[in-house]
Amino acid sequence: MVDVTPKDPTHRRAIARGKVFMTPETTSLVARGAISKGDVLAVARVAGIQAAKRTPDLIPLCHPLLVGSVFVNFRIEDTFIQVEAQVETVDRTGVEMEALTACSIACLTIYDMCKSADRSMEIGEIALWEKTGGRSGHYRRDAAGATPPTGADGAGSAGISSGDVVDDIDQLLGSDFTE
Amino acid sequence: MVDVTPKDPTHRRAIARGKVFMTPETTSLVARGAISKGDVLAVARVAGIQAAKRTPDLIPLCHPLLVGSVFVNFRIEDTFIQVEAQVETVDRTGVEMEALTACSIACLTIYDMCKSADRSMEIGEIALWEKTGGRSGHYRRDAAGATPPTGADGAGSAGISSGDVVDDIDQLLGSDFTE
Amino acid sequence: MVDVTPKDPTHRRAIARGKVFMTPETTSLVARGAISKGDVLAVARVAGIQAAKRTPDLIPLCHPLLVGSVFVNFRIEDTFIQVEAQVETVDRTGVEMEALTACSIACLTIYDMCKSADRSMEIGEIALWEKTGGRSGHYRRDAAGATPPTGADGAGSAGISSGDVVDDIDQLLGSDFTE
Amino acid sequence: MVDVTPKDPTHRRAIARGKVFMTPETTSLVARGAISKGDVLAVARVAGIQAAKRTPDLIPLCHPLLVGSVFVNFRIEDTFIQVEAQVETVDRTGVEMEALTACSIACLTIYDMCKSADRSMEIGEIALWEKTGGRSGHYRRDAAGATPPTGADGAGSAGISSGDVVDDIDQLLGSDFTE
Amino acid sequence: MVDVTPKDPTHRRAIARGKVFMTPETTSLVARGAISKGDVLAVARVAGIQAAKRTPDLIPLCHPLLVGSVFVNFRIEDTFIQVEAQVETVDRTGVEMEALTACSIACLTIYDMCKSADRSMEIGEIALWEKTGGRSGHYRRDAAGATPPTGADGAGSAGISSGDVVDDIDQLLGSDFTE
Amino acid sequence: MVDVTPKDPTHRRAIARGKVFMTPETTSLVARGAISKGDVLAVARVAGIQAAKRTPDLIPLCHPLLVGSVFVNFRIEDTFIQVEAQVETVDRTGVEMEALTACSIACLTIYDMCKSADRSMEIGEIALWEKTGGRSGHYRRDAAGATPPTGADGAGSAGISSGDVVDDIDQLLGSDFTE
Repeated sequence: MVDVTPKDPTHRRAIARGKVFMTPETTSLVARGAISKGDVLAVARVAGIQAAKRTPDLIPLCHPLLVGSVFVNFRIEDTFIQVEAQVETVDRTGVEMEALTACSIACLTIYDMCKSADRSMEIGEIALWEKTGGRSGHYRRDAAGATPPTGADGAGSAGISSGDVVDDIDQLLGSDFTE
Repeated sequence: MVDVTPKDPTHRRAIARGKVFMTPETTSLVARGAISKGDVLAVARVAGIQAAKRTPDLIPLCHPLLVGSVFVNFRIEDTFIQVEAQVETVDRTGVEMEALTACSIACLTIYDMCKSADRSMEIGEIALWEKTGGRSGHYRRDAAGATPPTGADGAGSAGISSGDVVDDIDQLLGSDFTE
Repeated sequence: MVDVTPKDPTHRRAIARGKVFMTPETTSLVARGAISKGDVLAVARVAGIQAAKRTPDLIPLCHPLLVGSVFVNFRIEDTFIQVEAQVETVDRTGVEMEALTACSIACLTIYDMCKSADRSMEIGEIALWEKTGGRSGHYRRDAAGATPPTGADGAGSAGISSGDVVDDIDQLLGSDFTE
Repeated sequence: MVDVTPKDPTHRRAIARGKVFMTPETTSLVARGAISKGDVLAVARVAGIQAAKRTPDLIPLCHPLLVGSVFVNFRIEDTFIQVEAQVETVDRTGVEMEALTACSIACLTIYDMCKSADRSMEIGEIALWEKTGGRSGHYRRDAAGATPPTGADGAGSAGISSGDVVDDIDQLLGSDFTE
Repeated sequence: MVDVTPKDPTHRRAIARGKVFMTPETTSLVARGAISKGDVLAVARVAGIQAAKRTPDLIPLCHPLLVGSVFVNFRIEDTFIQVEAQVETVDRTGVEMEALTACSIACLTIYDMCKSADRSMEIGEIALWEKTGGRSGHYRRDAAGATPPTGADGAGSAGISSGDVVDDIDQLLGSDFTE
Repeated sequence: MVDVTPKDPTHRRAIARGKVFMTPETTSLVARGAISKGDVLAVARVAGIQAAKRTPDLIPLCHPLLVGSVFVNFRIEDTFIQVEAQVETVDRTGVEMEALTACSIACLTIYDMCKSADRSMEIGEIALWEKTGGRSGHYRRDAAGATPPTGADGAGSAGISSGDVVDDIDQLLGSDFTE
């Protein structure tokens, strides 16, 4: 674990996104609250938030830090549910892994709750979308230039520009879902 | 959490796979053991094994069970590292989520150790490949018929048939990597 | 930690209940989904389920066991929210502490989410209501004969008989809340 | 999880109290060190301290923070054992939930150790008694004005004014119990 | 993690021992309950019991199992405190690592509580003393033949024969210490 | 848990060492990477790093802190493997227990991975070697003056002076082992 003690604490933020691909029947069940195991997105949100806090316990060389805020939001499309996790802190090291871990565990939780309805689900396109603070400055993923999965043309990400996603999701799911 | 107490314990096994997409320069650094943070695959294997055991603590509606074995193996290709996790148990509920969680956390650990070398990595194609035991019988993912990521033609998975992967990896990485 | 290895595994169940006392304004905010931190009961349910699984890690002399099912349900009344946790297992030791811990952590989570709206909340009347399985046989708490809190006349519990509570709650909160 | 990163770290303290109601025979067993499972209050104190540190792992929307001190003390009365937990920190968010969680888990531990001797125990009157630091200033629970449990006249809390309790407990249990 | 699923669950037991070497002044402080941080052996016992349950979370290739009993006992001698941990289970794999981990964490806890009084403490002679159950049969450490620490003549262990230690400790510390 | 809130955060470092004594055949198996369970030192290093971060969860009266760096290194000798753990932080309390815990868990992991090859292993000589920062100033263990295990002449530690160990280990094991 590299030494971060010489660094000064600064404000840092990271946004990660991922998707759970499923059949249109399954996304419809989730949207209608008809999955028998319960409220899929509410449970996935809690799982993602808890995972962000537990990141250094899961990723061996990750530094512990005090997460200052975590937001986990969702967008339901026809063939996938998109997860977006945003994490902030004031610390000596960034929250990139916290955002990615929150995103991954929220995806796994969606998978777990839907797996009796859909056996062919797949989790993918988990990536960092934005990172601010720290020595390396501001980073914003270029949707077009991102390394796509082998054989993918990247079209799946078309039309999503970071920054307006949270608003969209609020419109879709209602503000009482924002934690 | 659905009630599993009426079920009898039976032998169950699940295999999950996922990929960390990265530049050829980065896969080469991993293959040569030249990533400055340490031995990427050794650390990712331990992280995956530990995550399999901690699955019910991470995925809220997952039942606790006693993992009987976990194997985490890797295949380094030009533009990605493939992770395969196999979990077995004798219990009242399956180990599908344990295998997927082991796979996801191993991918995140690879990402964490390589992120100073490569900023555009992406984690994807995380899916269940095989599942045996339990009421639902034997399941084997059909590579061609699997729901591909939007815009993907599935070619990335071509040529991988479950069953021969562990041997391949052993050939590639040597038996001292098999835990 | 007393030795349970000579015992045979049997089916065991426990039901615990507790209350978070708050102002009518606060119970109304919860019922209307108007608490700014999010969906209070959905988050409390997940917290309770997770706590049931983590009980032996929290209560030092509690034996570890494999929780087979956990149900956490709620009843919103004018001046309190009642939490009921039911846990089942097939094991060598009972799940009384798991049910009580799930109940306590769900109460604390409700408190946490409402505390900016109501400063005078109090958690109380946490008790075991029913226990089956194991050497000591069936136990059912007698509402009238239970040791009441000092100075309490027990009226708060009047009219609640274990057995019909889950149905009531289903009526109140809808079947999509049942996990 | 609301964002606390804009706040400055300040010194914060919270005191919570709760009670485990039991028969006079059981309180007497505890006082005489005659509970067969071991030293009830010593085990409960450790459990409470550990729980304070683990609060953000248990309460989903609780911010992680570095607990700077935890004191858990007890008062044995005829029909109950009172638990008092005091937590301090220098951080961006308060320690109210840490004190309440320490208190709840200490109560559950007392319950666990005494449950073979007394089946009708009840945990109650868990509330915040004092809170200092942070934007909302000093808060001290007014025993008389506190929302009592339904049907309770509040008499159970009469005569307890926060501030002198720690001293009383020290007198009762001896200074070697203070951690 | 080697596969234990083909094995049948059997009764298994392991006993491990270790020592914390310290000055006679420090052992005397512990024996008299005069260490300012609190009741050293009571806290160390709880820490050891909790550690036994958490072993598979700490030792990466350890299988999870359900600990059926844990006993942690102590012997205070002039220049050291001896810790003995006994763990039992009915499972597919042994509890050797659980006993050793309980012993190690109890030693570290003693160290932590005494470190302001004694800076030159050392933890040592942590070893398995007895193991029963499982394919490899009964094992009992031969005090004379054990690999001693380099330069040690093993005299420190003279006169300790496994089997009578628990009784001795009960005599020394009193039955209210036995959990 | 003593109150550390009045203290100012300062840079602190601690180095601890311990040994796993084993037969020359076993140390040779480890050195040649011929232990069947896998890469012993790689797994032990990860276990030690993870344990350092989890110290306050294991040692009851230990304050939580944010570990800034952890290094775990090894020296293979004829009859033992020496573990050295170095931990740094900028915090209100020292990292002595974190270094000792990392060291102990790394030793236990080595034991676990070698136990099928060698039944007489022993863990010992776990001690603090250096500590800087905090009110008590710089501390460096005097190899000769350290309290040796009963009956030991201390010769086992001869020739090891703190400060040059990390370099030696780097020479022995190669820089790709340094994390």
